[in-house]
Amino acid sequence: MSVDQYRATFRGCPINASRHKPESIKATLQRLADATGDDEQIDNYGRGELIESFEREVAALLGKEAALFMPSGTMAQPMALRIWADLARTDYVALHATSHVALHEHNSYQVLWQLKGCELGESHRVPLLDDLKAAARDPLAAVLLELPMREIGGQLPQWDELVRQSDWARAQGIKLHMDGARLWQCPAAYEKSLADIAALFDSVYVSFYKDLGGIAGAMLVGDADFIARAKVWQRRVGGTLYALYPYVIAAREGLAQHLAAMPERRDNARWLAEQLNRLPGVTTWPAVPQTNMFRLHIRCNPPIFLEQGVRWMQQHQIGIIPPPYRVDDDALHCEISVGNAFDLLTREQWQEWIREFGEAMLTDNQ
Amino acid sequence: MSVDQYRATFRGCPINASRHKPESIKATLQRLADATGDDEQIDNYGRGELIESFEREVAALLGKEAALFMPSGTMAQPMALRIWADLARTDYVALHATSHVALHEHNSYQVLWQLKGCELGESHRVPLLDDLKAAARDPLAAVLLELPMREIGGQLPQWDELVRQSDWARAQGIKLHMDGARLWQCPAAYEKSLADIAALFDSVYVSFYKDLGGIAGAMLVGDADFIARAKVWQRRVGGTLYALYPYVIAAREGLAQHLAAMPERRDNARWLAEQLNRLPGVTTWPAVPQTNMFRLHIRCNPPIFLEQGVRWMQQHQIGIIPPPYRVDDDALHCEISVGNAFDLLTREQWQEWIREFGEAMLTDNQ
Repeated sequence: MSVDQYRATFRGCPINASRHKPESIKATLQRLADATGDDEQIDNYGRGELIESFEREVAALLGKEAALFMPSGTMAQPMALRIWADLARTDYVALHATSHVALHEHNSYQVLWQLKGCELGESHRVPLLDDLKAAARDPLAAVLLELPMREIGGQLPQWDELVRQSDWARAQGIKLHMDGARLWQCPAAYEKSLADIAALFDSVYVSFYKDLGGIAGAMLVGDADFIARAKVWQRRVGGTLYALYPYVIAAREGLAQHLAAMPERRDNARWLAEQLNRLPGVTTWPAVPQTNMFRLHIRCNPPIFLEQGVRWMQQHQIGIIPPPYRVDDDALHCEISVGNAFDLLTREQWQEWIREFGEAMLTDNQ
Repeated sequence: MSVDQYRATFRGCPINASRHKPESIKATLQRLADATGDDEQIDNYGRGELIESFEREVAALLGKEAALFMPSGTMAQPMALRIWADLARTDYVALHATSHVALHEHNSYQVLWQLKGCELGESHRVPLLDDLKAAARDPLAAVLLELPMREIGGQLPQWDELVRQSDWARAQGIKLHMDGARLWQCPAAYEKSLADIAALFDSVYVSFYKDLGGIAGAMLVGDADFIARAKVWQRRVGGTLYALYPYVIAAREGLAQHLAAMPERRDNARWLAEQLNRLPGVTTWPAVPQTNMFRLHIRCNPPIFLEQGVRWMQQHQIGIIPPPYRVDDDALHCEISVGNAFDLLTREQWQEWIREFGEAMLTDNQ
């Protein structure tokens, strides 16, 4: 039984514990057509009221001067670092070992963007002020901080610690860039507004298709000069598309639909982690989620778990444990990010299915 | 009267001599929803039958092994040149002065992609074999040839000349890359198939939103090894989007709808140029279009022409002369690319409107 088959079965379940309710392409396009005003005009190479008004909306939400819609975060983030590097006349940038830039972009920040990466802290924990100070032995242009840190289960630094890091970086003339792909999860955790959090940073990247259920797309947010520079780089990198409206409309709808629900989803994530931690062999990371997401360590015989899991999902049409991102000899590693798919069942129903799942899957599998 | 006002008025006309019939965002999204099968699955980071089957379709159409859907040509073309440069272990590439790469990308091929550009021929004419030989005094990895050459009125090299250039480049071990943004116009001009033309090149970029009426998007086409390398670079540059389906579906529909009409549109372009050349002060470039597009030189007093043009279009709701891309003291420079908007009137009707336009606009304006 392959992970691919498990993944396909999980995604085929009409009810999933992780992410959003499934929606067909046809239904999404129909929904976006319905959500579009009769007189809304096509954007053209980044210009036009449709895209510019949404950029203004997100900039205002984050308390910044300007914003620029981008096709992807992989495009947006090294671009932000390149801008800060050019202004500082140094190519050094500090980033955590689990940063998307370091892990998932084929070293683009080095090979294409000609930046030099400096280590920031240790891979299993959030960076601390002392880690920033250690990285700054090289002449840093910028520090990239991810909030929340996806690869370590959505952990966040303590608020006071984050403020200290921001104060220190400002005093050094080092720019702080936020990987805010899932920034939408942070206000509930910090009890601060999006603008309060963004105020600690010089530039912010946010994503529209993860928490917010868009099709794809991202934004860079910062001051007017930073965004003016980003527009030139966006053209250079081929990200100034002839039209971006399907992504813009989906992002706009997603923001309107999902943002207000983020605190409740965080509560659901904490509740869900508590339930799953009661199953034999299951441990969440962190034990109590700080945000809307967490990771799972499942002690099991992976081939047996995957095979039984496919059968269980086929029988019940419910996906509880997402496909593993890592398979060890004696364990699976998975990730849950609570979206609106969780709302398809009540907590009582989830509790019952989790108990049933644990009995079927995990009791004689230790 | 500004060019922007003229442009807005031209675009607001329900009938235009250039490009395609206007369609609202809402109508486009609705049309794409209708064109999507109930069971079509969302693509994910470039994978999935929806996107892969369309890549296979276009690769087959061009007689190549493989293809890769891209958000933009600005992303695709320097990427192709970078791949050839890496394989050849030299950064020199030859490109015409009017190449999109040289003119419209803020020198991305140098600044971001770290390529070195060599001049290729003269800016007002198609490159000849001797121009390739002259450029090859530097150790060239690749030569970029645009078919047809947009900035010089859609001109094409003679077929035999193109074959000689291809033969010579192959013999030298220099790769030929085609900017085929408007390749769809070439079969009628050469009386050759798309595959015949693409066979002269090692890599081809095609676009889906110009002749074919898609939303945005492009493809790189070549052999399997080239496309495998392009997939890595696409990830690096941030072009491997979480989902591309709105562009893919629009491109697929556009290819099905527009490709067969390209020869007829070339005939219409030649007929239209003939009519316009009869107007006082109007000259097309070339005098007889080779493809579906041409440029216009209009001898006039530009402020007066623009003001009268707006009034004429407001009165008749027909746009004949597109907004100028260049304004001189005594002339306007415009471009017409014949799409399906031309089909909204018969040739007889166009002839009558062109005569009327000439009388109103150009007779006392010389």
